[in-house]
Amino acid sequence: MARVLTPRAEDFPRWYQDLIAKAELADNGPVRGTMVIRPAGWAIWERIQSEMDDRIKAAGAQNAYFPLFIPESYLRREAQHVEGFSPELAVVTHGGGKQLAEPIVVRPTSETVIGEFMAKWIDSYRDLPLLLNQWANVVRWELRPRLFLRTTEFLWQEGHTAHATEADARAYARRILHEAYEDHMVSVLAMPVLVGLKTSRERFAGATNTYTLEGMMGDGKALQMGTSHELGQNFARAFDITYTSAAGTVEHAWTTSWGSSTRMLGGLIMCHGDDNGLRVPPRLAPVQAYLMVVKDGAGVGDAAASLRDRLREAGVRVALDDRTDVPFGRRAVDAELKGYPVRVELGPRDLDAGNVVLVRRTEGSKTPTPVGDAVSAVLAALEADQKALYDEALARRLDRTVDVSTVEDAIAAAATGWARLPWSAVGVPGETKANAEGVTVRCLTRADGSVPDSEDEPDLVAYLARAY
Amino acid sequence: MARVLTPRAEDFPRWYQDLIAKAELADNGPVRGTMVIRPAGWAIWERIQSEMDDRIKAAGAQNAYFPLFIPESYLRREAQHVEGFSPELAVVTHGGGKQLAEPIVVRPTSETVIGEFMAKWIDSYRDLPLLLNQWANVVRWELRPRLFLRTTEFLWQEGHTAHATEADARAYARRILHEAYEDHMVSVLAMPVLVGLKTSRERFAGATNTYTLEGMMGDGKALQMGTSHELGQNFARAFDITYTSAAGTVEHAWTTSWGSSTRMLGGLIMCHGDDNGLRVPPRLAPVQAYLMVVKDGAGVGDAAASLRDRLREAGVRVALDDRTDVPFGRRAVDAELKGYPVRVELGPRDLDAGNVVLVRRTEGSKTPTPVGDAVSAVLAALEADQKALYDEALARRLDRTVDVSTVEDAIAAAATGWARLPWSAVGVPGETKANAEGVTVRCLTRADGSVPDSEDEPDLVAYLARAY
Repeated sequence: MARVLTPRAEDFPRWYQDLIAKAELADNGPVRGTMVIRPAGWAIWERIQSEMDDRIKAAGAQNAYFPLFIPESYLRREAQHVEGFSPELAVVTHGGGKQLAEPIVVRPTSETVIGEFMAKWIDSYRDLPLLLNQWANVVRWELRPRLFLRTTEFLWQEGHTAHATEADARAYARRILHEAYEDHMVSVLAMPVLVGLKTSRERFAGATNTYTLEGMMGDGKALQMGTSHELGQNFARAFDITYTSAAGTVEHAWTTSWGSSTRMLGGLIMCHGDDNGLRVPPRLAPVQAYLMVVKDGAGVGDAAASLRDRLREAGVRVALDDRTDVPFGRRAVDAELKGYPVRVELGPRDLDAGNVVLVRRTEGSKTPTPVGDAVSAVLAALEADQKALYDEALARRLDRTVDVSTVEDAIAAAATGWARLPWSAVGVPGETKANAEGVTVRCLTRADGSVPDSEDEPDLVAYLARAY
Repeated sequence: MARVLTPRAEDFPRWYQDLIAKAELADNGPVRGTMVIRPAGWAIWERIQSEMDDRIKAAGAQNAYFPLFIPESYLRREAQHVEGFSPELAVVTHGGGKQLAEPIVVRPTSETVIGEFMAKWIDSYRDLPLLLNQWANVVRWELRPRLFLRTTEFLWQEGHTAHATEADARAYARRILHEAYEDHMVSVLAMPVLVGLKTSRERFAGATNTYTLEGMMGDGKALQMGTSHELGQNFARAFDITYTSAAGTVEHAWTTSWGSSTRMLGGLIMCHGDDNGLRVPPRLAPVQAYLMVVKDGAGVGDAAASLRDRLREAGVRVALDDRTDVPFGRRAVDAELKGYPVRVELGPRDLDAGNVVLVRRTEGSKTPTPVGDAVSAVLAALEADQKALYDEALARRLDRTVDVSTVEDAIAAAATGWARLPWSAVGVPGETKANAEGVTVRCLTRADGSVPDSEDEPDLVAYLARAY
């Protein structure tokens, strides 16, 4: 069979680009750094949105929508925030044929504009917590764009909440971290993300604590899959978000923000993709079972339609491909590229013997299966392959994470995976040294793997890696 | 009871603003013309999106996503298009801290950028039709903004399709018009929209035909609720969207586009709202049954939770309000404002008698109902009130549409409703005259009410009105 993609071992970044193009997931937009998400990519993003949205709502947040355009002056109100975002801003200077009196910024994130409205909507402690989320596009000028990973415009959800106390804010930032993000990434995306605390150097601009979920890609590099921030009272002070307490005093609120984006699609590809294309975890897959009519023949069309209906009734997301005028091999390669978890091939010869052929994308097996057993076989394959993808990714993460004791060894280990060492052996000087070599502290955890409240806790463990 | 809103009869525009503020649907953004959609408004928009998205997918279109930023040069390629949109553009001149070589336009609509990619993706007649849709924000600089109706940034879906023949393109533009838009507006929004053809003066910039759906608001004015356009080969020529026919010749495709936006929320408010607030049609309502614990008492909480569960099992979207620390009257007024179709009040005294009180928003009735009958009573009320809202709106439209024979009489009739007269009695000079008085030709239909293919068909009927 002709080689469809550059093999990962030969050139991982090239493989990634090839896969996105050949699986028709996305394309570069005409303005540098922008992205077109094609129907095959969008269908996966819709599923991610749906799964995430359910979890965000279950955590009590309500969806809303805030404007794309933000007065430039808003960003300046929080010193670290404006410093962090200024180099990345897109600025509108003309509107309706006229030069604008005040330049407008295309939102790079919405802490400032949402802070303004929180101040307006919150009066008393009874209005807290205020738990908001929005699905939106944001713009951060990108000098080295890469599809899904770094694009000038990207799509995301950004949550913004206000609480009466620091403890409440911390608890909610962590609730989203675990119940919305980690649960989705582990159980739907089948990615064994490492959850931890960012160092102060890696924090979000304006945050007091940033929690992160880091995925290991197929080449051993890290990808930040989502973050949840405690903002302390920084934005509450900048935007005057105050409330009257039960005791009658006026207090500043404590706020959080948290985001996850189309970047997750890049993570999905680089975590699960192989040399034949994407492998979409069954729970996520927009198409879980891809029914292919191999060629026309007596009863083949009816058998395919009947199996499609039975699979649908069983709750399987199914697509029927009866394009017998397109060569079978081309369709099969395309199905591999797109990563449909299970392919069911229906041909006249197999059907004469009462069989269909079950092809499993994850393990590459081809199994003749009696038509009557096809639904249960598909269901079993979907369940097994969800687990298989997770286990494979976890085995890689464990295998490629090495314990070291010095920053020098960590930098060396980062050539092929992640390095783990005591945070006390790194510190600010070690972090500077690693950064100079293109290696970053991805996160800090406690010795038992739990997430610390502060980088100053004793006995923390640091994970260092190269990252996307 | 204190007056909550300015009555419609006193000042309709003020009533509209009051309602949006008091029902907490939306707010003005800090950049003039932009809008914040609050959770109560967003929940309705999510339901609209879901209902529309189902219908768009049923019509065979696939969702995708194209960039927010468009090179200014793209818009110039289609002469009428750039002329139509130039006065409304927001222009980005600086990105990443530098002045840009070519100014970038924030998309006012995406025909141009999607045209570019259609040209790339379409090779042969086998690639047609190409049926795409996206949910996105767009920006058109608005000098006289009004929440939901005219905002500088608004949210919408825009469909873009390419076909082999003019007949195919026309059939699809009409399929979306009827099967996606009209069906949704009539059966979900409960709005008896008038469906017709725009005159050439009112056409979309770059279209050869624009079909429209016009709703009559509570004050007798018209609101364009959605449009579907045949673009002929205008964009296919401008962007070189060609295909190789079965006969081997290279042909330009025929394209369509169609859009519906957050403006539908404005239409919903102005069509169904009354002096007590919004009335949301049951099929649309994010909350169909609003359970209110009147005050605490033995067994009240359990009864409320049990009824909530039974309603959910019956497929009713339900919310439970047990905030007995908030005065009942305030909660009831808020429920009226938000327009929940059915309110179920649970108080200790009624429950002692085995009853709940069913309050129907549409007709304002309050009916003590045995607890055991509550689910069936709610279901019956939801079904009846969906129809009642539609019937009321249809009766108004019929009542306030008058037959006239001259443009002068049409202008006079437009003070209170719509005027209907032969298109031959209007023509281009009559349209100019009406426009000078703030009256527009909303659409043309055939005598039997069907939608014409061209304004040049004989015996067409014109509808003239003032419009939002």
